[in-house]
Amino acid sequence: MEPALRLLLVLMVFMPCTGDVNVWPMPKSVSNGKQTVFISKDLKMTVVGSNYSDEKAILRDAFGRMVAVVEQDHVISESYEKSPVLVGMNVVVGSRDDELNFGVDESYSLFVPSTGHPLYAQIEAKTVFGALHALETFSQLCSFDLESRQIILQSAPWSILDSPRFPYRGLLIDTSRHYLPVPVIKRVIDSMTYSKLNVLHWHVVDEQSFPIEITSYPKLWNGAYSYSERYTKDDAIDIVQYAEKRGVNVLAEIDVPGHALSWGVGYPSLWPSAICKEPLDVSNNFTFEVIDGILQDFSKIFKFKFIHLGGDEVNTSCWTTTPHIKEWLILNGMDETDAYRYFVLRAQKIARSYGYDIINWEEPFNNFGDKLDRNTVVHNWLGGTVAEKAVAAGLRCIVSNQDKWYLDHLDATWEGFYMNEPLAKIYKPEQQRLILGGEVCMWGEQVDASDIQQTIWPRAAAAAERLWTPIEKIATNTSMVAPRLARFRCLLNQRGVAAAPLVGYGRSAPSDPGSCISQ
Amino acid sequence: MEPALRLLLVLMVFMPCTGDVNVWPMPKSVSNGKQTVFISKDLKMTVVGSNYSDEKAILRDAFGRMVAVVEQDHVISESYEKSPVLVGMNVVVGSRDDELNFGVDESYSLFVPSTGHPLYAQIEAKTVFGALHALETFSQLCSFDLESRQIILQSAPWSILDSPRFPYRGLLIDTSRHYLPVPVIKRVIDSMTYSKLNVLHWHVVDEQSFPIEITSYPKLWNGAYSYSERYTKDDAIDIVQYAEKRGVNVLAEIDVPGHALSWGVGYPSLWPSAICKEPLDVSNNFTFEVIDGILQDFSKIFKFKFIHLGGDEVNTSCWTTTPHIKEWLILNGMDETDAYRYFVLRAQKIARSYGYDIINWEEPFNNFGDKLDRNTVVHNWLGGTVAEKAVAAGLRCIVSNQDKWYLDHLDATWEGFYMNEPLAKIYKPEQQRLILGGEVCMWGEQVDASDIQQTIWPRAAAAAERLWTPIEKIATNTSMVAPRLARFRCLLNQRGVAAAPLVGYGRSAPSDPGSCISQ
Repeated sequence: MEPALRLLLVLMVFMPCTGDVNVWPMPKSVSNGKQTVFISKDLKMTVVGSNYSDEKAILRDAFGRMVAVVEQDHVISESYEKSPVLVGMNVVVGSRDDELNFGVDESYSLFVPSTGHPLYAQIEAKTVFGALHALETFSQLCSFDLESRQIILQSAPWSILDSPRFPYRGLLIDTSRHYLPVPVIKRVIDSMTYSKLNVLHWHVVDEQSFPIEITSYPKLWNGAYSYSERYTKDDAIDIVQYAEKRGVNVLAEIDVPGHALSWGVGYPSLWPSAICKEPLDVSNNFTFEVIDGILQDFSKIFKFKFIHLGGDEVNTSCWTTTPHIKEWLILNGMDETDAYRYFVLRAQKIARSYGYDIINWEEPFNNFGDKLDRNTVVHNWLGGTVAEKAVAAGLRCIVSNQDKWYLDHLDATWEGFYMNEPLAKIYKPEQQRLILGGEVCMWGEQVDASDIQQTIWPRAAAAAERLWTPIEKIATNTSMVAPRLARFRCLLNQRGVAAAPLVGYGRSAPSDPGSCISQ
Repeated sequence: MEPALRLLLVLMVFMPCTGDVNVWPMPKSVSNGKQTVFISKDLKMTVVGSNYSDEKAILRDAFGRMVAVVEQDHVISESYEKSPVLVGMNVVVGSRDDELNFGVDESYSLFVPSTGHPLYAQIEAKTVFGALHALETFSQLCSFDLESRQIILQSAPWSILDSPRFPYRGLLIDTSRHYLPVPVIKRVIDSMTYSKLNVLHWHVVDEQSFPIEITSYPKLWNGAYSYSERYTKDDAIDIVQYAEKRGVNVLAEIDVPGHALSWGVGYPSLWPSAICKEPLDVSNNFTFEVIDGILQDFSKIFKFKFIHLGGDEVNTSCWTTTPHIKEWLILNGMDETDAYRYFVLRAQKIARSYGYDIINWEEPFNNFGDKLDRNTVVHNWLGGTVAEKAVAAGLRCIVSNQDKWYLDHLDATWEGFYMNEPLAKIYKPEQQRLILGGEVCMWGEQVDASDIQQTIWPRAAAAAERLWTPIEKIATNTSMVAPRLARFRCLLNQRGVAAAPLVGYGRSAPSDPGSCISQ
């Protein structure tokens, strides 16, 4: 680090002065000043001192997107009478590696000086993904100045050191209840990056439709709603690449044995019977051949360390009432709960064979936690005491308790999203470390392309801060962050994200005329 | 026209056969066939035989956008084994002129052959704006073929001759009740082009906020909701240019004397008094100086032939109860209705001096129609018999009856939008010609960036067909067009336009899981 910047950092530590910090989520450590800096319309990026070659243009394209998003709200004056002018940003990335995966270092530092010639901001990050977060933070420091008609950055010099509290900060989307066109999914991914969410949990398939191509079992997507409401294998790869380029991992879920009625449209033998269609037929080896085929295909598309195998809400009555399955249970000395366990564990084994670590919804843990693969991550959704129990049992956990973090629950307020603490009642550090993070869930029964972004935002942003910002900086009273979240919501609107007003239930329309920042 | 195409046209006239035509709005004349044509991934545009030089890249950029929108849904295969392949489109524009304005020729013909080598589609239009409509229609003929993983165009050969029924097909947006960021307005403009709407009626200012810069009276935008909820003069020019490049005219409205409370935030003398703030003070010459300044500034920005001067919902009690205005009325021998007339006519004169033709809401016509400038266009909104009366009096008229065409009325169904006939009860051709068209109105009390597109679409599309398609082809029963409108709605979703389901009231969420085309 350049000596001048080092000195700046030292000074910032000893003279912390923080004017309004309108960044969401709040960074770990922020100091700023009182100077206004003008941003050059031809802002450059340099990489002096960087080890990263950016062959995939991850950084270059992110920089271009950042500039575009900062410049799109108003026409910027061509003339340059004001100063000082920030002419560029120097981005120093330590690692040559740009394979995104779980646990990648996302930390960064961002320095925006107010003196110097030429004036350059400095980003330093261990990986390119930290640099992407730095660019996002930088973009939120910019605003349009009506006097000069230029982009400015107020309260410089800035010194920001930042890194996330939790490594898993997720959003679930559900493309089975309603098909989401690929461009819509891409816009959701873009919006995630604005609040530094980093896992897109793609709940691809469920009871109502099977929209994705499985080349090893090509009739599975006969269960799609219609000819065109489908994702080809290449579409899935495209989505994953789009996300990864933006620092977002894609977690695929193939929920078994329940929530799988749609599988049988193409392969009816997967159903227990023609009149009893869920869960998947546990007695039929073909069921596991299909699961194997799906996971094999997925292993070529979804490179995230984890795969989600579902396992929730399994009503086994179609097993016990369908004669051939009933017989199989007896033959194998199983009752229905044994069979459920058998199914989940066999699916886990298949997934492990493709190199995945497994996430399951909480019911397998609740029912037979001691039998689960020890690397299983428990996805808490029902609520209550599950997270505590999972980590006490030595298993990793992701928190999505439905009373607070289900976005389809329109009566779940942003305040409730903000205040939901993943480490609630978990005190031992070794157990706290097992909470990987959390996820807000946008179930699709009543969302489609017309209302998904309004339903996700701004409540998901409230959770995003809970998952990113150090606990010491998390507000203990949501009224302290309401103005900043309102501004972030308005920023989202400017960026084309249809984030709903803060006031009222999820996806409420504004009730009256008024300013964006007060609604 | 090439002989082969001429023959094609003749054949199409004598052998009309129309398979499913999934174009919205329905073109004037359509014939198609049974062949499938594959679209080259490198589709070219040529201009052989065209007179138009496209210096502003209107055509070139529209072609690029069209290709992007057609190709964005799915990953397209690189390999080309199928045929025939459409390699390009030849676009012949008759006129060199590309100044957009009211009454510009928007007609076009579109021929997509199924044989020929090389295979080219042919567009012919009198103006580039007709060609833009042709490109839009072409884009709606394209779809993704899962077998070849390429874009195809089914039911070729196509022979389409098209032109709009009405020259004025508008959408009102309201940036006073809620500020709409410039990028949001641009997305609205994009979505208008998909259903061939051609006038953006920008209701810029109203009681609640004054968001636009008026350089001649720079304190007016002190009435904005906040520092950043503003449009600079350059932003307004940018919006107009963005729209014009896409064949959309921008009609600016400066509503006087009512609906103008926000003007007084910067200039309190415009208010009758500090406790009685609407309408604008009729007794104060300064009021008209400000109107003159606004219109002078507008004349440099808004190049549409028309300007809208509002004039609706004028409650004159602040005139009759404020002493200095009461005195002025007496001095000038006016009662309140005289003063209202005087105000509207004086504002009209100012607008005429800048070369504008004037549109007023219907109340001036209802109250003193015979005194209005004879070029006044009456904007019918209350309903009932006004359109008939206006044209019987020899005045032009635009229809926006609130019971059917107000988008903020969520209980106004798409069926009601579709069935609302601008020429209802107007039988004489010379009077029918005075109905310029109509407009759907997206008042902003309960819409902002989070819900505007859901509230506009798909109901505005229903009106768009009523305004474009010849009456003989307009369905007499909306169940006949529901499937096609549902498909158009899904197309909008694919294009990133958050169009709501057809079922239910305006901007309803989908009530259940299901296919896009059935909701």
